[in-house]
Amino acid sequence: MYEFLKGHGTENDFVLLPDHDGAVHGELSAVRVRALCDRRAGIGGDGVLRVIRTSVVAPEMSGQAEWFMDYRNSDGSLSEMCGNGVRVFARHLVESGLADADAAVPVATRAGLKLVTTNDDGTFTADLGQPKLLGLSEVEAAGRRWTARHVDMGNPHAVAFVDDLAEAGPLLDAPTHDETVYPDGVNVEFLVRRGDRHIAMRVHERGSGETRSCGTGACAAMVAAADADGARPAEDDVTYRVDVPGGTLHVTWTTDDRVLLRGPAVIVATGTTGL
Amino acid sequence: MYEFLKGHGTENDFVLLPDHDGAVHGELSAVRVRALCDRRAGIGGDGVLRVIRTSVVAPEMSGQAEWFMDYRNSDGSLSEMCGNGVRVFARHLVESGLADADAAVPVATRAGLKLVTTNDDGTFTADLGQPKLLGLSEVEAAGRRWTARHVDMGNPHAVAFVDDLAEAGPLLDAPTHDETVYPDGVNVEFLVRRGDRHIAMRVHERGSGETRSCGTGACAAMVAAADADGARPAEDDVTYRVDVPGGTLHVTWTTDDRVLLRGPAVIVATGTTGL
Repeated sequence: MYEFLKGHGTENDFVLLPDHDGAVHGELSAVRVRALCDRRAGIGGDGVLRVIRTSVVAPEMSGQAEWFMDYRNSDGSLSEMCGNGVRVFARHLVESGLADADAAVPVATRAGLKLVTTNDDGTFTADLGQPKLLGLSEVEAAGRRWTARHVDMGNPHAVAFVDDLAEAGPLLDAPTHDETVYPDGVNVEFLVRRGDRHIAMRVHERGSGETRSCGTGACAAMVAAADADGARPAEDDVTYRVDVPGGTLHVTWTTDDRVLLRGPAVIVATGTTGL
Repeated sequence: MYEFLKGHGTENDFVLLPDHDGAVHGELSAVRVRALCDRRAGIGGDGVLRVIRTSVVAPEMSGQAEWFMDYRNSDGSLSEMCGNGVRVFARHLVESGLADADAAVPVATRAGLKLVTTNDDGTFTADLGQPKLLGLSEVEAAGRRWTARHVDMGNPHAVAFVDDLAEAGPLLDAPTHDETVYPDGVNVEFLVRRGDRHIAMRVHERGSGETRSCGTGACAAMVAAADADGARPAEDDVTYRVDVPGGTLHVTWTTDDRVLLRGPAVIVATGTTGL
């Protein structure tokens, strides 16, 4: 038996595993991750966030952050980062007294150091670093084709502007994409404009299918939209509201070319399991 | 904050709420049930099983069973009985020392008293009582129509024989049914024969959508199949294996016209939540 928590950010949900010194889960097998994430035979989640000391798994980063977010996809594979997950991870650190709520919480990840700050309204903001705005290619879903902007947020995104979010159909299968542009697959965002600096989106995540929210996807969509709107930051930071099926995020593109993802982070349960 | 457990029987999964004297949850609102059963923002489950003393909610049955299974569908509506849930409920009573493992465990439900026994292989058998084999009507899904047998197991079922389980389509919506036959809605089973006394099925549960398993549905399907096969019990009990998407159940129709449902029951986690 071991401890777990369940939490979510805009309904992108996670099983958190406190394993401070790595003694509970050792290597943390893919079999256990899949069992935990199973929505009917297990706890259920889009992924697992193991809470482990940086000194145990990434000693080269231990001067930067005490805690490492060991993120696994629900299929058991390793993943570098998760923009919704890192907020939930930071909330857990703060609520458990493992990090100071009055300062930015440094979190070590496979994509480097991330800083997460607590906001007065209870939301959290994660600094996801510099976006890369790249070229155009085509994606196809539900028998339609769209031109999509390539945005790299540490992971690859193809952002397509649509007239109606329903156009992309039920998204039961991955949209087709240009494999010369995205040899390792791609996350595809479909977005519509809702108003001034306000967009809404759906996302198909590689390896997961359509999800209720994707943090880096929201950032990629905002960057593509701001660029298309002629709203790249110049003298001031630029913030867009991004509605996803699971809630609302706010994405800020700063004058020093960083992307900040702000949104809710909720811990809904704590308990023990033998899975 | 209050206590919960999560468990499942053939991947028909439940949030259990210990509330022995009714002081924790009072009326237990539909809003709370929906929040608990939400698979991304909550714990996740096909329904909630409140563990409460019979004397609190059904004093007229308190001489028959100490514990009452207060079952709610994931949409918050009341339900009479759940054949997978009652096994999980009995496992919880036995594991918690609330019932004796060496005797049949009596469980009070809205469909009357149910007896659950522990088997040597760790499975549980629930006596779901006398089936009522009723008439024929039609159900429709994925643009197809089938004649379906009406079987009442304390709750209503429409059992349709199909050539292939895929025929019914993705079952994103409830199959249509004859509302004069089923004024309160109906659980719809689609079944195929797999061999001698061996069937496989899919089920759409009213209030929950397609699920990985439905215990009373497996019983209804077995009864309809045995009747159609000319295998109603005469001198000996008759047992069918029933494969559901979430595992395997065994259903016995006894010579004294009772239906016994045998299958696994698992508690996967215990914890606390404030949902």
